[in-house]
Amino acid sequence: MSAAQNDESDIRPGEIAVALPERFDAGVYFIGTIRTPWKTRAECPKNPREAGDTRCTIELDARYARALEGIEKSTHLVAVYFMDRARRDLVVQVPRHLGEARGTFALRSPVRPNPIALSVVKLVKRDGTKLTVIGLDCLDGTPLLDIKPYYATVDAANLKQD
Amino acid sequence: MSAAQNDESDIRPGEIAVALPERFDAGVYFIGTIRTPWKTRAECPKNPREAGDTRCTIELDARYARALEGIEKSTHLVAVYFMDRARRDLVVQVPRHLGEARGTFALRSPVRPNPIALSVVKLVKRDGTKLTVIGLDCLDGTPLLDIKPYYATVDAANLKQD
Repeated sequence: MSAAQNDESDIRPGEIAVALPERFDAGVYFIGTIRTPWKTRAECPKNPREAGDTRCTIELDARYARALEGIEKSTHLVAVYFMDRARRDLVVQVPRHLGEARGTFALRSPVRPNPIALSVVKLVKRDGTKLTVIGLDCLDGTPLLDIKPYYATVDAANLKQD
Repeated sequence: MSAAQNDESDIRPGEIAVALPERFDAGVYFIGTIRTPWKTRAECPKNPREAGDTRCTIELDARYARALEGIEKSTHLVAVYFMDRARRDLVVQVPRHLGEARGTFALRSPVRPNPIALSVVKLVKRDGTKLTVIGLDCLDGTPLLDIKPYYATVDAANLKQD
């Protein structure tokens, strides 16, 4: 972990770290790169709604180009990406906006054992392996893990009926 | 890859495989195990809605127990898990239910470069590190990667306004 990350990596009073397992259980490929206007955590919107209609780009590696066939049938996608600059060992965190301790799995913080994020995005256009989308709030250069079609019937909880 | 998986691993006419990178770019920890009634792919519901109100269990490893603090504040969660029995090299697939070729990123198939799945689930109850939930459709024994609180404001696309 580089010195540049120290500010983000410091533990605040009330936060709890655990020893992570010695080995990973599986590996992931970075299949592309997300391009956004935000170069630092401080610049990033707090959530996708705050990002408004900022257009970002998902650049898929050429190796996987054919995997985009038919993607235009979806108006919305789920982008899955890896927040590779976050520490992974905190189980209890004290987010600034909350000011109190809460378990990692009760938070959307990038700090988690597997720093995998998901964002529902609107697909604006596709140019070859570049997708222009609205709805991302992550750092420029964030590695892409997956793209899925968004299905409201399964991806949106029906909070009244469920 | 074991012989038992051959049926699922065969390529159908029209499907396209690519050579995957020689190395993974990052690692993930299996942080728990998902318990469901379904022991084979054939038994699994086709999607979470088809699973109806079947109750499944997310068993979190004791190491991460404190990360659940405050999780009861959420009625719904996003479960992120690893479909470790799926091949990863197909970029074009011919799903049986479609009968035509489509790119992997236009499908929710478990077969994808990073076989990471997400399900929005309803939290029924918590007993220590065991969460009883409704909304999963995966195989029994599926490794867990993450649990996040579900926020309708960011996780559900507003298909009319967006």
